[in-house]
Amino acid sequence: MPVNYAPPTADSLLPVPGIALGTAAAKIRKRDRDDVVLVVADDGTVASGVFTQNRFCAAPVMVSREHLAAQRARHLDFRALVINAGNANAGTGEAGLAATRASCAEVARLAGCEAAQVLAYSTGVIMEPLPVERVVAALPAARDAARADGWFAAANAIMTTDTVPKGASRRISIDGASVTVTGIAKGAGMIHPDMATMLAFAATDAPIAASLLDALTREIADVSFNGATVDGDTSTNDSFVVAATHHARIAPITARSDPRCAAIRNAIEEVAIDLAQAIVRDGEGATKFIAIRVEGGRDADESRRIAFAIAHSPLVKTAFFASDPNLGRIVCAIGNGAPRDLAPDNVSFWLDDVLVVDRGGRAATYAEADGQRVMQQREITIRVDLGRGDARATVWTCDFSHDYVSINADYRS
Amino acid sequence: MPVNYAPPTADSLLPVPGIALGTAAAKIRKRDRDDVVLVVADDGTVASGVFTQNRFCAAPVMVSREHLAAQRARHLDFRALVINAGNANAGTGEAGLAATRASCAEVARLAGCEAAQVLAYSTGVIMEPLPVERVVAALPAARDAARADGWFAAANAIMTTDTVPKGASRRISIDGASVTVTGIAKGAGMIHPDMATMLAFAATDAPIAASLLDALTREIADVSFNGATVDGDTSTNDSFVVAATHHARIAPITARSDPRCAAIRNAIEEVAIDLAQAIVRDGEGATKFIAIRVEGGRDADESRRIAFAIAHSPLVKTAFFASDPNLGRIVCAIGNGAPRDLAPDNVSFWLDDVLVVDRGGRAATYAEADGQRVMQQREITIRVDLGRGDARATVWTCDFSHDYVSINADYRS
Repeated sequence: MPVNYAPPTADSLLPVPGIALGTAAAKIRKRDRDDVVLVVADDGTVASGVFTQNRFCAAPVMVSREHLAAQRARHLDFRALVINAGNANAGTGEAGLAATRASCAEVARLAGCEAAQVLAYSTGVIMEPLPVERVVAALPAARDAARADGWFAAANAIMTTDTVPKGASRRISIDGASVTVTGIAKGAGMIHPDMATMLAFAATDAPIAASLLDALTREIADVSFNGATVDGDTSTNDSFVVAATHHARIAPITARSDPRCAAIRNAIEEVAIDLAQAIVRDGEGATKFIAIRVEGGRDADESRRIAFAIAHSPLVKTAFFASDPNLGRIVCAIGNGAPRDLAPDNVSFWLDDVLVVDRGGRAATYAEADGQRVMQQREITIRVDLGRGDARATVWTCDFSHDYVSINADYRS
Repeated sequence: MPVNYAPPTADSLLPVPGIALGTAAAKIRKRDRDDVVLVVADDGTVASGVFTQNRFCAAPVMVSREHLAAQRARHLDFRALVINAGNANAGTGEAGLAATRASCAEVARLAGCEAAQVLAYSTGVIMEPLPVERVVAALPAARDAARADGWFAAANAIMTTDTVPKGASRRISIDGASVTVTGIAKGAGMIHPDMATMLAFAATDAPIAASLLDALTREIADVSFNGATVDGDTSTNDSFVVAATHHARIAPITARSDPRCAAIRNAIEEVAIDLAQAIVRDGEGATKFIAIRVEGGRDADESRRIAFAIAHSPLVKTAFFASDPNLGRIVCAIGNGAPRDLAPDNVSFWLDDVLVVDRGGRAATYAEADGQRVMQQREITIRVDLGRGDARATVWTCDFSHDYVSINADYRS
């Protein structure tokens, strides 16, 4: 069960004018559920995407990057996204690329567009051939099932080791018109066992210009999905695409200086953070949700590195699992993530409101009972002050439990 | 139980002329065992050390670095090493430094030398005050107990979460004279839960000049302890000191061009690798020992980074625990550790003798039954060929089991 997360319902995910979603069963791995999603966008929709940095990125990541570049270069609309669960189509070489291209071609035929207007996600086992003929065979049914309120069904169809579907919506008012942002994601870790992947898709009807949407998507990914970690492994398939259908009846938003840009950016960011946190809350075996805020850094990069050193330490994570205020482990992780010139004497950290380390040493006011009280919570914030600048970074992670080992040791077999 | 490791016995650890070791019970944390070790070296001994890179390094690390520098600057002999288990004296600020200085001062008094000739190790809980008065009180007994064959007792006294003592000896012949190298270590991970630390100490009677010993110690640490990882956390206390007593009746070894240098270097390196592997074999919860060799890199650094990306991946480690040939996880880890310009199409990897990935894709000859056969072994080699140079690196790690979580979640409480 996820930590403090109320999963979306069919009603809580608001339709986005211009977007329809349909699901179907291609029986790629599981026989008893829909595992293919087709997202169809109206003419006039633009999309931006950010993808995994893993060098062994999957075929759908390579093809989606190529198609997004073609959309920009040739001013093509984004028309569809095809997703399959059960097979990551990663480490599959030329055959994998051909499979993704075949599936995009079939979607293009069904949607009456070019293949370059179609993006693709895959999630599942790495290094096994994708049975693309099954995906292709299921696509007409997914197209026929597509409807504006298909978000909840889609959120369910893309699940792998997820225990709950993940989705979020925001509705804001701009220039007196209603503007919607809805997103869905899957993931129970940055990588999932065999079920490699964090996937997220969000759409808005706001008329955001393509180049502005590109910039916003990258920025939002940095403060949302790129701050989420379960086990420190970046998958071969991570993908986040934001589509803007331009259906909202307001003037186009083309510049960052437009005050409406902040409003829509904020709404998309809230949806993205909600989804990123949902992935961590549903992290494999998670019993606690831990936010790590590193402040006072010289730059965001060093703040981020220290936050991740804490978030990735198996010793820190097992201490949280045990509710053991064994806070020397956090000191050790800070020391590991720190640049060579960091002076420990300037570093302090807090567990929620409890000061633990005061400028390099155990705080005089620290009592283990206070640490114990915070450690027993299901939701905990570690705040670190590096005392040498104004930069900061926030990362979310979960604890490391017996169930993590069970899920990952037993999954595939 | 460690993986394929026959612990040393009282007889298997050979005395090193010029070195005596004594133990005593300071009752720092456990009441029923010796937890203080005093190593005493004869006049004429030189020592070199390498220490943790963690920014929050422990007080004994700071003092030992300072004392080694003074020994070099003032041409002082190394005369003693004092070790305590049960408390890491890390994150303890000025009081911690004063505690280490007090314990070195008492050793100097007992040994009739300067404090700068004494080094110190501590291992145990981080961020708790060291009860140095108990260490000081136990030192006379340790001094009285010191004997040439005290290595085995010392190896036992420094254990924390270790399940077995760790030690190794080599005896070689140089210029017709017998030369001995003996070393001991503790550790069940790069960091140990509360019991932070990898500690190792080796001594030889070979007459190695100080500056040559400095260089050899760094090189040997790189190919031994720096290649060992259990959980990726570098402790606040990691320390490796090599002492050369100059007792062997051969002419001094002062230059790398001396053919005898290779012989003694090799003997010390074998002892260090034996100890480093022993730490991994006794890794917390380990059921398998995994050697990771990355070859064909442009430089050693990139080979090493990829080897550690594999070794640190919880998903790879849990797959080994499960004997599951879920080898896409290794592909993913290589992709995460790789530099941006690595071409996946040149990368191949083997599990022992089984070719799994052949230049970027699943090998045509790969059958899951072959992967399964290797995964069931207790000792496994992953060999990666990056296909772009001649550099290589080797790293040793263990799998990630339920017992790792139990040991680290339950230890302190």
